Amino acid sequence: MKVLAITGGVGGAKLALGLASILGPKELEFVVNTGDDFEHFGLHISPDVDTLLYTLAGLASQDHGWGRSDESWNCLESIRALNGETWFQLGDKDLGLHLTRTQMLRDNHSLTEVIQHLSKCLGVSHRIHPMSDNPVRTIVETTTGDMEFQQYFVKERCEPIVSGFRFAGIDTARPVAQLLDQKFESVIICPSNPFVSVDPILAVPGMRQFLLSLHVPIVAVSPIVQGQALKGPTVKMMSELNFEQSNTQIGRHYEDLLSGLIIDQLDEDSASPIRSLGIEVKVDQTVMKTLEDKTSLARSAIDFAATLIEAC
Amino acid sequence: MKVLAITGGVGGAKLALGLASILGPKELEFVVNTGDDFEHFGLHISPDVDTLLYTLAGLASQDHGWGRSDESWNCLESIRALNGETWFQLGDKDLGLHLTRTQMLRDNHSLTEVIQHLSKCLGVSHRIHPMSDNPVRTIVETTTGDMEFQQYFVKERCEPIVSGFRFAGIDTARPVAQLLDQKFESVIICPSNPFVSVDPILAVPGMRQFLLSLHVPIVAVSPIVQGQALKGPTVKMMSELNFEQSNTQIGRHYEDLLSGLIIDQLDEDSASPIRSLGIEVKVDQTVMKTLEDKTSLARSAIDFAATLIEAC
Repeated sequence: MKVLAITGGVGGAKLALGLASILGPKELEFVVNTGDDFEHFGLHISPDVDTLLYTLAGLASQDHGWGRSDESWNCLESIRALNGETWFQLGDKDLGLHLTRTQMLRDNHSLTEVIQHLSKCLGVSHRIHPMSDNPVRTIVETTTGDMEFQQYFVKERCEPIVSGFRFAGIDTARPVAQLLDQKFESVIICPSNPFVSVDPILAVPGMRQFLLSLHVPIVAVSPIVQGQALKGPTVKMMSELNFEQSNTQIGRHYEDLLSGLIIDQLDEDSASPIRSLGIEVKVDQTVMKTLEDKTSLARSAIDFAATLIEAC
Repeated sequence: MKVLAITGGVGGAKLALGLASILGPKELEFVVNTGDDFEHFGLHISPDVDTLLYTLAGLASQDHGWGRSDESWNCLESIRALNGETWFQLGDKDLGLHLTRTQMLRDNHSLTEVIQHLSKCLGVSHRIHPMSDNPVRTIVETTTGDMEFQQYFVKERCEPIVSGFRFAGIDTARPVAQLLDQKFESVIICPSNPFVSVDPILAVPGMRQFLLSLHVPIVAVSPIVQGQALKGPTVKMMSELNFEQSNTQIGRHYEDLLSGLIIDQLDEDSASPIRSLGIEVKVDQTVMKTLEDKTSLARSAIDFAATLIEAC
């Protein structure tokens, strides 16, 4: 049983950690959003990849959900004293990773090769694929203008009212060959933001077809509980885009892709409308606070996918 | 009396600090070598400019002679753990300056504007001119091949045998207009390496003519005492280039430019051969250990230049 997990930032990384604590490197691989990658001070920063790397390496900050534990901020304080841009929190240790990645990309290594190298150095044994080695940038269209994702997410603190999204560079992007080469027995979409974490991945030309061509269960964990997002602007976006703020809408969002959706036990009453979309539903505890929560939900998602194999 | 001081790295910065402790911002400006600037991890690093900035701001490390005091090295340790390049010592606070400069250059500010901004933020009131806003790179020609200056100086620890120097980009470089606009009553060449600190400055087309057109005393402080360089590879280079390792050779090196040369009191016997080159000589203590040494030598150089005004 080999699982492909699709994930974005902090929310997705929680389930990712649960999956990685159950399944070995030959049983689990990840494909990660790189639409929120950006250039800052000339450095190439990959927030979602780094969140997953740090999480799986046991280096993630427990306080913030992003960045590294035991971090220092002397560089950022120096930038502040020089009136430079400080809206993006660059920790000193974290910077070492950005510098190393930037140099490798300048030396014509692909993002895939960079991630393999960083994974090896950090002791991360599960393979992490970027959604593409080609640059794709998520642009958030808002009523106050278009902006790059990190500007919207960090600098503007998700305050602008969203009217849509587009993924610059997507037309010429391709999934990485190392992903397309493989067979998986199930696909799990982690509880990441559908619009800005999962959609960029699915929008890479060839990605959706690859997933469908596997003819295996594709199971998502809803990022919504009781009409609220556990993390980030998912529900705010749904509201601004005039979508119903519900698990049913999450089901609709992934259209024909989903075999099953896991929703929280508090939302049991939305199982029926989701099933009427032709999507199987499993009700479980989706709020992940402890490692045990993460492992338990991961096990639940794996088991759920296994029960759906017949149907594919 | 307005003085222009020509300076490179650590050795020059000592006299520069002495000068700045005597003369106010309207009486003293600096022009600094940028031939050893380089790109590292995609960042623009200006070692000589930074040494002067940190020295004048009172932020220079007293232990190293380069970099900042009270520095931390968490980023570099992170790079080391990721098998990145660690031969160039990047402190966390120092990095903040490199990032800020890199961003400003990417935003199409000139190096002059960047230095003005950094000076203001660091409380440095004396004007520091880069030798040019155009990129010039000192290439050290050695018996094991050509290499960029920082590679020779830091990575290879000045070990390769030098056969010559060239300054890539020099043909299209020009001195900065903010320098050429001004009048100075004397010029002091700080005790920096003649080949790799002062020569790049003098090689900028128009710089030597500008200095000569001032028709003012140009006084150098020899970087050699008793046939030894106080700092860096000056004497090693002289030996490898088959030059006499002496103050007389320093006098010859600057050719027609010099009105006077200050040599150390231990080298009094070389005064005569230097005078026979048509260069006035002043004998003084040139070893600068304390701030008092620096101030005293600065005062001596200013006074020496004043006595030479008649001759120009």
